[in-house]
Amino acid sequence: MKYGARNEITATVTKIKKGEVMCQVDVGDIIANKMSSVMTMESIEEMGLKEGDKVKVVVKAVSVLLIKE
Amino acid sequence: MKYGARNEITATVTKIKKGEVMCQVDVGDIIANKMSSVMTMESIEEMGLKEGDKVKVVVKAVSVLLIKE
Amino acid sequence: MKYGARNEITATVTKIKKGEVMCQVDVGDIIANKMSSVMTMESIEEMGLKEGDKVKVVVKAVSVLLIKE
Amino acid sequence: MKYGARNEITATVTKIKKGEVMCQVDVGDIIANKMSSVMTMESIEEMGLKEGDKVKVVVKAVSVLLIKE
Amino acid sequence: MKYGARNEITATVTKIKKGEVMCQVDVGDIIANKMSSVMTMESIEEMGLKEGDKVKVVVKAVSVLLIKE
Amino acid sequence: MKYGARNEITATVTKIKKGEVMCQVDVGDIIANKMSSVMTMESIEEMGLKEGDKVKVVVKAVSVLLIKE
Repeated sequence: MKYGARNEITATVTKIKKGEVMCQVDVGDIIANKMSSVMTMESIEEMGLKEGDKVKVVVKAVSVLLIKE
Repeated sequence: MKYGARNEITATVTKIKKGEVMCQVDVGDIIANKMSSVMTMESIEEMGLKEGDKVKVVVKAVSVLLIKE
Repeated sequence: MKYGARNEITATVTKIKKGEVMCQVDVGDIIANKMSSVMTMESIEEMGLKEGDKVKVVVKAVSVLLIKE
Repeated sequence: MKYGARNEITATVTKIKKGEVMCQVDVGDIIANKMSSVMTMESIEEMGLKEGDKVKVVVKAVSVLLIKE
Repeated sequence: MKYGARNEITATVTKIKKGEVMCQVDVGDIIANKMSSVMTMESIEEMGLKEGDKVKVVVKAVSVLLIKE
Repeated sequence: MKYGARNEITATVTKIKKGEVMCQVDVGDIIANKMSSVMTMESIEEMGLKEGDKVKVVVKAVSVLLIKE
């Protein structure tokens, strides 16, 4: 199974909150050795981002795809 | 600083690959206690997803926002 | 009407599921001659993807925009 | 293999355009019986969308995930 | 023309930066009376967000669709 | 605070619509001097987009991140 995405994390479902149309699934026991972001060159220059910098990695839950292999 | 997103992870920039318009930033030393996905009820029912299930968490790098506090 | 997006598909609404804040709209009679994905070079190299390969095209419903012309 | 996404389409890679950081992958021979969009109730009410309506389905290529099973 | 999206803004193209696969388009003369975000209830509760609050609205350029009518 | 995103807009929360899992937050008093979109070169060539063109900027509410500083 090969995915056209840079972020592949292994985890375990810890909680499921169900609504009428949508639901929220929380996961824990997260194993994530590496993550990647893609942004514009303009953004990285304005951030002055360089190797070694501490960053916050923010992802909206709607952009997170869960796969049950 | 409070973000309207469920996934807030702390990490360190490990590599930057620059192009003309876009760039890829890899991060490591990832501290992620919890992550969340939002999907349709139809999806979760078809997946038969329940607490305790092992899952792959897949996120495209374009959906990952880095913030330098 | 010209859209800054690579995937333009014609379809017919088949079902609407309404919630309080969100709703899910299913479509059928899909006419899609071509679709496109954008990913990082790192992803495509790791996938070893080449012309002629069979692939699964996965898109979260939140990323799908419907337009009534 | 079960995906937490409503849109699962089978296709064949027809063309790959490579850049330094990103690449575009086009696919054809598309088999898509059903697709789904999720939007706000406000949007659907403003659109006056109902079963039987012809719509354009627009998706940005960055939101399209390819998987090689 | 009716769009299944809450954010419809009128603007004028001010600058175009072209790469091999991707390009960045900047716009100005922005007319935006209202914008909307959708997030989880958990997020809004943790933010303690209420009417009258000043907020920063952040959107990645890859999520912005331009349409030439 | 530096964000890896091109679109940073200042606004005020005007309305909150709450559901079980998701909520919609509307904002007004929008101050947006510049916005940016990233798309494929193929899209911009097919649109024939050039400086000075009037465009509609469309963003799905799920892609809009609110931050309370």
